[in-house]
Amino acid sequence: MQKLNRLSATDAAKRLATREISAEQYLRAYLERIDEREKDVHAFAFINRDGALHRARQLDAGAVLGPLHGLTLGIKDVFDTYDMPTQGGSRAFEDYRPSQDAGCIAYARKMGAIVLGKTVTAELATFPPNETRNPLNLAHTPGGSSSGSAAAVADFMVAAATGTQQFGSLIRPAGYCGVIAFKPTYNLIPKRGVWANSDSCDTVGVIARTVPDAALVTSAMIEFPGLRAFVEHADKVPAPKIGLCRSYEWDRCDAHMQAAFEAARGTLAAAGAKVCEIALPERFRGMAEAQSLVSNFEMSRGFSDVVIRFGDKLRKPLYERTSAGLKITGEDYQRAQRLGRECRHLFSDVLGDCDVLLTPAATGEAPKGIDHTGDPIMNGVWSFMHTPCVSVNGGYGPNRLPLALQAVGRIDDDARTLACAHWIHRHLGG
Amino acid sequence: MQKLNRLSATDAAKRLATREISAEQYLRAYLERIDEREKDVHAFAFINRDGALHRARQLDAGAVLGPLHGLTLGIKDVFDTYDMPTQGGSRAFEDYRPSQDAGCIAYARKMGAIVLGKTVTAELATFPPNETRNPLNLAHTPGGSSSGSAAAVADFMVAAATGTQQFGSLIRPAGYCGVIAFKPTYNLIPKRGVWANSDSCDTVGVIARTVPDAALVTSAMIEFPGLRAFVEHADKVPAPKIGLCRSYEWDRCDAHMQAAFEAARGTLAAAGAKVCEIALPERFRGMAEAQSLVSNFEMSRGFSDVVIRFGDKLRKPLYERTSAGLKITGEDYQRAQRLGRECRHLFSDVLGDCDVLLTPAATGEAPKGIDHTGDPIMNGVWSFMHTPCVSVNGGYGPNRLPLALQAVGRIDDDARTLACAHWIHRHLGG
Repeated sequence: MQKLNRLSATDAAKRLATREISAEQYLRAYLERIDEREKDVHAFAFINRDGALHRARQLDAGAVLGPLHGLTLGIKDVFDTYDMPTQGGSRAFEDYRPSQDAGCIAYARKMGAIVLGKTVTAELATFPPNETRNPLNLAHTPGGSSSGSAAAVADFMVAAATGTQQFGSLIRPAGYCGVIAFKPTYNLIPKRGVWANSDSCDTVGVIARTVPDAALVTSAMIEFPGLRAFVEHADKVPAPKIGLCRSYEWDRCDAHMQAAFEAARGTLAAAGAKVCEIALPERFRGMAEAQSLVSNFEMSRGFSDVVIRFGDKLRKPLYERTSAGLKITGEDYQRAQRLGRECRHLFSDVLGDCDVLLTPAATGEAPKGIDHTGDPIMNGVWSFMHTPCVSVNGGYGPNRLPLALQAVGRIDDDARTLACAHWIHRHLGG
Repeated sequence: MQKLNRLSATDAAKRLATREISAEQYLRAYLERIDEREKDVHAFAFINRDGALHRARQLDAGAVLGPLHGLTLGIKDVFDTYDMPTQGGSRAFEDYRPSQDAGCIAYARKMGAIVLGKTVTAELATFPPNETRNPLNLAHTPGGSSSGSAAAVADFMVAAATGTQQFGSLIRPAGYCGVIAFKPTYNLIPKRGVWANSDSCDTVGVIARTVPDAALVTSAMIEFPGLRAFVEHADKVPAPKIGLCRSYEWDRCDAHMQAAFEAARGTLAAAGAKVCEIALPERFRGMAEAQSLVSNFEMSRGFSDVVIRFGDKLRKPLYERTSAGLKITGEDYQRAQRLGRECRHLFSDVLGDCDVLLTPAATGEAPKGIDHTGDPIMNGVWSFMHTPCVSVNGGYGPNRLPLALQAVGRIDDDARTLACAHWIHRHLGG
């Protein structure tokens, strides 16, 4: 029999709802996996072993609560949880014990989810990494900042996990670890109780092993069943129209990623998709810089308390970036915001009759070393664009690590984006 | 000699910076006023008397910290403060003691501000009111949800105060109390450490007694000096081009407000402004409903922890609205979001060659009674529009309470909006 922790969340949810498997039995499969692997992967900042077992027994004894009944979730350690520490991967928050659950976590629990633990984040959901390793190759970074969420999902230590993205903190680590991240349209998942870095870029999302799993968790977390309607009709969904997009950051991709992207075109066309090329308008050329500027302006101001009262507990690169951000002028910030608004408005027409755009999710496979989290340059623009993005499989690189692409949909067109990403992922061998 | 607590923040800041007056002396004028009036007005949820005195003495003994050196601020009780309780006007948070300052508060302190206390908010920055009364007439509501901030500023108990607006929580109470609220462009002031209700509508802002005061505090809080550049050149600024706009909610205004609005036209034109009529495009007709829908969708999901674990401590109308919000479908939510994006994009062209639009800030003067906070119908659209808004004086109603108008500028055009609002406010007798 397949180990229970290897089931997709979608499959497990069905079996848990019918009591074919018990929540405790399912949870124990994950706990065993954690016992086996966590000492190497370091995906967790806190493991809620006793609380999770208690909860599983409650779920087994009571009614089926909702679509997440019994599913195990990892929660990035920048989401407040009333019953576990929240430390944000920072020495400045070692003693922080929130009294509340983030809104989306509370709702996931109401729908039956078991919060198995808090997953490691890079420092304050930015770039200085913490101790997590890529489960596919422990010598490589899992990416960040949602490092532990990606690693724990990829290594079958949780069924799914939450994350946030300001630059590339969902899509990139999921891509590096060979799993799915769904970054929904900006603001779709509420940020109440989630630590804010840049209000104009930060987006809450979900990491899972399949696109339907990511859709299941997201839809339950915000009471939006339509997000996963495609799962029921997956075989009837027509092949999508896909716009292949090199973007202005294409040159930052290595040759392996560029080759994987080119290969995807043939594979997808052969599978029946209508594939065309999309060139982004000239205005998009400045978007990566604009995103970085807006993000750093907002973060430097928002982080004031941390910098002023706990500056000595921040790692130097973060302290320096935050201080430098204070020098960005309001005028430059507003100019960058205007460009963002303009490009968001243009984007639907840019897509034309395409359903989604397909573009690299990272510059290549997960780099070696865990003293960095890789380059988010392929993601920042799409964070600032507020578009839904889903990472999908694009093959493997020279180290047999995943090369991930991302499907980018129109703002507020999340259901279609998920459906198309599912189609693409399956046909690219995911 | 004028009492020190009657000085504008701009004037006081100059005298404090030159040590013409000491921070302690200035603070004591406010504390005296609080002793005299707070028992009737109930503007404060917490008064930081000892902490403020200690801080004032430190400021007097040390270097001038920044543009807010020695100024007294009231902080709406949904902003986290590391040294004071934060209760959000809710029984659910009676015991909540945050360990951090909201980013914008930390920066205000760094710039020299004295946090004099936490101001009363309606329950969780929504609509069920708390104990604050309108200082201009204690039998009337001060509006809400930033009730205490508006009342404390209007009654000379603080120099300025912070607030948030989801529906009409800054502009309306400031208007009812005869003071200025500046709701900047969405996301301009960081929301880190500020309690979130609706991520797509919530905006942090400032309440003060003059437009330059609001600009001073905001610009210092986010290190954006350009926001108050107009103060130095106020006499050289040409008369603005003003678009008078009745909006689709005009019929909700009472006859006094409608008359005040009509009278403003003549006054402003006589003072040299170019005044024209602006009719909002047909698409804007649905914006009030769309704002309400988006706001309630997001709030109902974001409030999950409060509702699930502390539902019995919420007042019934809020509990019911939150529960009802869960029934709003994701599809309807995204349709409403699309309308919002479309109208935001249209707005710059709607303004044409006008600098700002002028429209009622409330349906009339502050209504009688403190069991409600008045109708936010004139504000919700502009929260959802993400535009900068400044409340300005528009005359007085039958109870000799203020009739406020609001100047609405283009997104990201905050400096000009403030300059125009200053001009308008002065020429309308503010």
